[in-house]
Amino acid sequence: MKSVIPVELPNQSYEIAIAPGGLDFLGTWMQGLGLGQRVLLVSNPPIFEHYGERAIASLTQAGFVVSPCLLPEGEQHKNLASIQQIYDAALAHHLERSSCMVALGGGVIGDMTGFAAATWLRGLAFVQVPTSLLAMVDASVGGKTGVNHPQGKNLIGAFHQPRLVVIDPDVLNTLPEREFRAGMAEVIKYGIIWDADLFEQLDAAPRVDQLQALSPELLQTILTRSCQAKAEVVSQDEKEAGVRALLNYGHTIGHAIESLTGYSLVNHGEAVAVGMVAAGAIALTHNLWDETANTRQTQLIEKAGLPTQIPSAVRVDDILPVLQSDKKVKDGKVRFVLPTKIGAATITSQVEMTTLRPLLQTLVAS
Amino acid sequence: MKSVIPVELPNQSYEIAIAPGGLDFLGTWMQGLGLGQRVLLVSNPPIFEHYGERAIASLTQAGFVVSPCLLPEGEQHKNLASIQQIYDAALAHHLERSSCMVALGGGVIGDMTGFAAATWLRGLAFVQVPTSLLAMVDASVGGKTGVNHPQGKNLIGAFHQPRLVVIDPDVLNTLPEREFRAGMAEVIKYGIIWDADLFEQLDAAPRVDQLQALSPELLQTILTRSCQAKAEVVSQDEKEAGVRALLNYGHTIGHAIESLTGYSLVNHGEAVAVGMVAAGAIALTHNLWDETANTRQTQLIEKAGLPTQIPSAVRVDDILPVLQSDKKVKDGKVRFVLPTKIGAATITSQVEMTTLRPLLQTLVAS
Repeated sequence: MKSVIPVELPNQSYEIAIAPGGLDFLGTWMQGLGLGQRVLLVSNPPIFEHYGERAIASLTQAGFVVSPCLLPEGEQHKNLASIQQIYDAALAHHLERSSCMVALGGGVIGDMTGFAAATWLRGLAFVQVPTSLLAMVDASVGGKTGVNHPQGKNLIGAFHQPRLVVIDPDVLNTLPEREFRAGMAEVIKYGIIWDADLFEQLDAAPRVDQLQALSPELLQTILTRSCQAKAEVVSQDEKEAGVRALLNYGHTIGHAIESLTGYSLVNHGEAVAVGMVAAGAIALTHNLWDETANTRQTQLIEKAGLPTQIPSAVRVDDILPVLQSDKKVKDGKVRFVLPTKIGAATITSQVEMTTLRPLLQTLVAS
Repeated sequence: MKSVIPVELPNQSYEIAIAPGGLDFLGTWMQGLGLGQRVLLVSNPPIFEHYGERAIASLTQAGFVVSPCLLPEGEQHKNLASIQQIYDAALAHHLERSSCMVALGGGVIGDMTGFAAATWLRGLAFVQVPTSLLAMVDASVGGKTGVNHPQGKNLIGAFHQPRLVVIDPDVLNTLPEREFRAGMAEVIKYGIIWDADLFEQLDAAPRVDQLQALSPELLQTILTRSCQAKAEVVSQDEKEAGVRALLNYGHTIGHAIESLTGYSLVNHGEAVAVGMVAAGAIALTHNLWDETANTRQTQLIEKAGLPTQIPSAVRVDDILPVLQSDKKVKDGKVRFVLPTKIGAATITSQVEMTTLRPLLQTLVAS
């Protein structure tokens, strides 16, 4: 069972290879990319302990000279200090312009490795080997790389496309359940904004709240269709001038919730889940979609074991100013992605802040 | 007297406008770029004292909302700490994705502003207003941006093209003479590698070692033809996969000399001048060009008041290992740009390190 999804871009196209056991083919699949010998393998200690040896063995067998660079785990280390660590390792391992960095880890490792690759020697190749569901279906595809500024997530970054994405579903076996559910939030997102059939398959499945409840076929479908959706959107709009903004569905209010809970109480996927419920409610009040669709969305999010209410620790009055400082703000207007039906969404800056407050208030957990 | 040179690139073309008094037209010329209102003006205190007010007046009159960001002066501050300062200012001034950064200064300010623009909100527009001859004819055109790593120059960086380059020759009046001569090294470089006619004009001029000795027409010619040469090379090869490497003429050994003298004893242009003399000598021993051409090059460099010998503080034995760590090294081979005649050069990795040592030894100042 191997799916290959092309990501077609004007300057640099690449493939997403999805296959159980794919980690052991990493080196082989990289051989066709015309890279130099030296590879810097960026990871963190727990991931490296599980999968580092296999990745290195695969790369070494394919003729690469690999040096690992292990960064401290966690979003709180997604900063320029970690990037400096990668730079130092790149220098110590004598990376050249033809060399490659490989990101073995979740979204944090992928974003940082991509940014370091974008900015070392003015741009090296990099390969994504995502190990979390969230990174597989979202962060590893599309070329958004970066780190956080003390005052905002992902404010520092660059567009830099990977040369290859290798997704091995087997590595999800070591992913904590809560992280799995967080990834499902993004999968559900694709069902709402892009792929109605994916939504139906998730809706029809007996359970979607843990990895073990999924058949291998459904898991392959989830990964393939999510990556396909993202690849289609990114191919149409690499630099987020238009349609790519759809991918921010659930993220506007989601980011505010993450920020206001100090990026600790709720994780990214949980925040996006709540954000989608909020966006669905806004769409309903604006008559963009109907009650049935809105309820189906909420029920699927609940079925995935994800939250549907704003944590009580968050004050609604604090959300609005955070929205205004989001990097997607244009001329001071907050742009929302709102669903129009299951499988389609639109972008609007017509949501009045005055109507938003009471609506969000109804979504706060009691 | 206004020259406009187009830089044609696949994704983003832009213009270099060269005109005495052009600083006062900065805002007007930026109006056509489709930018948002907010502008961050990055400079350093001495430059800002001379030209900040005029730049701000021009931008404000054109409707932009400007905030200045002043960085400490000097190559020793070309690091990530200064970039963080720009990030903080960008956040405080609420830059959005449609906003713009303007670099008012020499190469250090231009490189850092460009890098910050490349990496803030994953890429903002930026405009170059170079105030040194070196920045006018070299750094401000072509999109190479970046900062130094403690262990090497420009190791951290990105390709990010400006949206406009505004060159006002009048601002050279406040440039120290030694800095002017440093810029002339790059001008001579274009004469050797690309534009034989430029070389002849410099050769025919009574003096080229100080600004006051040049006629306004010759100065305009120098700026226009140098930018034209750079624009042509960059248009053919934006990311330095081929012909752009020609621009590194004199830079391979030049960089080593700068590095080994701690970036203080000789400046960049002086190091490049010596590097060109060295490259000329290597070309001669490889029968790539003749004695006459080599002598003409050396004489023009001397006429510009630039050094032609390796400083006695540098040990030749130390140069070779530094060459090996240069970021243009490919598979461990050092690539040299060598002249083939006045107005043309070639790239080769066939220079034997064993022959290099005795040759360089003859160039050391006694």
